[in-house]
Parts: sequence; structure tokens; C-alpha cells
Amino acid sequence: MSRPPGRKQENRKISRELFVLTYGALVAQLCKDYEKDEDVNICLDRMGYSIGIRLIDDFLARSAVKKCRSYSETADMIAQVAFKMYLGVTASVSCSSAAGNEFSLILDKNPLVDFVEELPAERASLCYCNLLCGVIRGALEMVHLAAEVTFLQDRLKGDAVTEIGITFLRKAEDRKHKRNK
Amino acid sequence: MSRPPGRKQENRKISRELFVLTYGALVAQLCKDYEKDEDVNICLDRMGYSIGIRLIDDFLARSAVKKCRSYSETADMIAQVAFKMYLGVTASVSCSSAAGNEFSLILDKNPLVDFVEELPAERASLCYCNLLCGVIRGALEMVHLAAEVTFLQDRLKGDAVTEIGITFLRKAEDRKHKRNK
Repeated sequence: MSRPPGRKQENRKISRELFVLTYGALVAQLCKDYEKDEDVNICLDRMGYSIGIRLIDDFLARSAVKKCRSYSETADMIAQVAFKMYLGVTASVSCSSAAGNEFSLILDKNPLVDFVEELPAERASLCYCNLLCGVIRGALEMVHLAAEVTFLQDRLKGDAVTEIGITFLRKAEDRKHKRNK
Repeated sequence: MSRPPGRKQENRKISRELFVLTYGALVAQLCKDYEKDEDVNICLDRMGYSIGIRLIDDFLARSAVKKCRSYSETADMIAQVAFKMYLGVTASVSCSSAAGNEFSLILDKNPLVDFVEELPAERASLCYCNLLCGVIRGALEMVHLAAEVTFLQDRLKGDAVTEIGITFLRKAEDRKHKRNK
């Protein structure tokens, strides 16, 4: 009564719903573990960082992108290629500093919160998707780009869009500082 | 300096690597939280159950499958359609009881352990992928099928394949018992 498995086992695309719900279970568990939202946020960022430093190899192999020649190109690559690949959506990009090292990635729709209605009142400071910031920070560090990555706007907190800010750190001492974190 | 977001935002397919690494972070967190493997396994199963009872609507809507007429068809549906949709692989199915209510789903390759080399010696009883059992159990319950779902073989523990056992519970009292869990 055995039936052979299907072919094409190497198609690595999946529906994102299981991921989104599993991510929700992770955040819920951290909210059980840590009383303070700030501690949950830090933990999500650290987890994301660990994921980002591993995910970058997969991204470079799968996207076959060439080396980015500017911060602007790098921000575009994250918003258009990486977000599409790993979250199934793209973000729009705007440069928010004259120095050209600060960018905003703006998501009209954030798939990670698909099943989340709103944050509980006692979790008002929770950055629900903070894992993403860590992932971006970790992945960038592996291509020798130190950056600070934080949520600037969050639809879960009543903002009109979800906005992730990326500040590329250019000074050698900034980079050293980030590496030792 | 603003650029428009890409179109086709409703393509819900994603690469599974971010999911697999996020799942790893979840299991690692539970291993920090619970000393006993058994407690981690129970927690993963419960989380999976909560996910399964929500995921079933998405599955029915997206797969547009008709009602299964037998346990065998149901097992095939999970192995061929649901696994493909949510994990990107298919499983082979075998019926392991004369009564026709016990099935094995056999995965030659388990994508959830893609980045896991082996379980630490002190975690020898961990069912790393136990979330999957809970997901299947929860989803089946929502279509009025009570079932026990457990790992029978696990490549992470040195077995040749990964095998998930599904036992459909047919008696009314069994179903009632499961519902009250």
C-alpha cells in the first residue's frame, strides 16, 4: 500500500502561512518568558541576528546578485529581492538623510502580522516583528556592512504603514563597536 | 528618492529558509525554557495544535480540495498536498494497520532540519519537529477527525527516514476524549 513520493522535491517555495503562525508562536513564547517588552524586543533582535548571519549565504547563492555598489543599491536589494524571496512582498525604499546612509523600507502590508489583530494593551511597547531587524543587521554584517536596523513605524501600533529604518555605519570605530555586540 | 513597491504583492509563496531558521530559534528557546525534553515536546505539540486549527481554513481555501472519503484519502491529502504547500516537499504514505486507520507519512528529506546537524547528547529525547504532529492533529480535528500523531522515526536520531504516524480514532468516546484535551 505504499505510494511513491512526488517529484520536484527541490522546489524550495512554500506558502507563508505556516511560517507566519510559527513566528506568532515564537513571539507568544517570548512574551511568556519575559515580562518587559524591551527584553522580548532584544531577544527577537538577537535571534534575528543569528538567523541573518546564516541566511545571507542562502540569499547570495539563490539570488545570484552582483555586489552592490552603494548603500542605495543595498537597500533596494533588501526591499525588492530579499523581502520578496523570504516574505513574499516587496517594500518601497526612501533615503532619509542627506549623507545618503539612512534608508526607510516601507511595507504597505506586513505578512508577518497576517494573523495578529492587535497587540494586547500590556504589550504596547512590543516590536512584534523585531526579528526582521536582527535578520537584516546580521545579513549585512556578513557582507561587511555594519548597520543599525529598527522599526520606525508599525501598523500594529496604529501607524499607517510599517517602516523599517536602516542606518549604515561608516566609521571604522562604529563598525568595530557593532562587531563586539 | 522614493521608489514604488513591486506589484504582485499577493503571491504568497516564500523561500522556506527563513521559516526553517525561525523554527530552529523557537525550538532553541523552548530548550532554554524547559529542562526536560518531554516538556519541550509537549509544548511544541500544543503550539502546533493551535497553529493547525487556524491553518486548516487557509489550506481548504487555497487547495480547493473536495471532501476526503476515506482515511486513506485524507492521509494522501496531507502527504501530497499539505506538505507540498507548507513545507515544499511531499511524503510517501503507507497504511500500517489491517483496520485501515493507521498510516505512516515518510519523508526522505525533512526540510525543517535543514540547518540542524545533530541533536546535542543531552537532548536525545527531543522530538525536534514535534510542532508538525500538533499541526496535523489540530487541522484534522477541525474537519472532525480525531487522531493521534507522533514521530515514529527521525533522521535526527539516526533513523534512515523521518516517519510520522497518524492513527485515526474512530470511536465516539475516543473523539470526545481528544476534544477535551
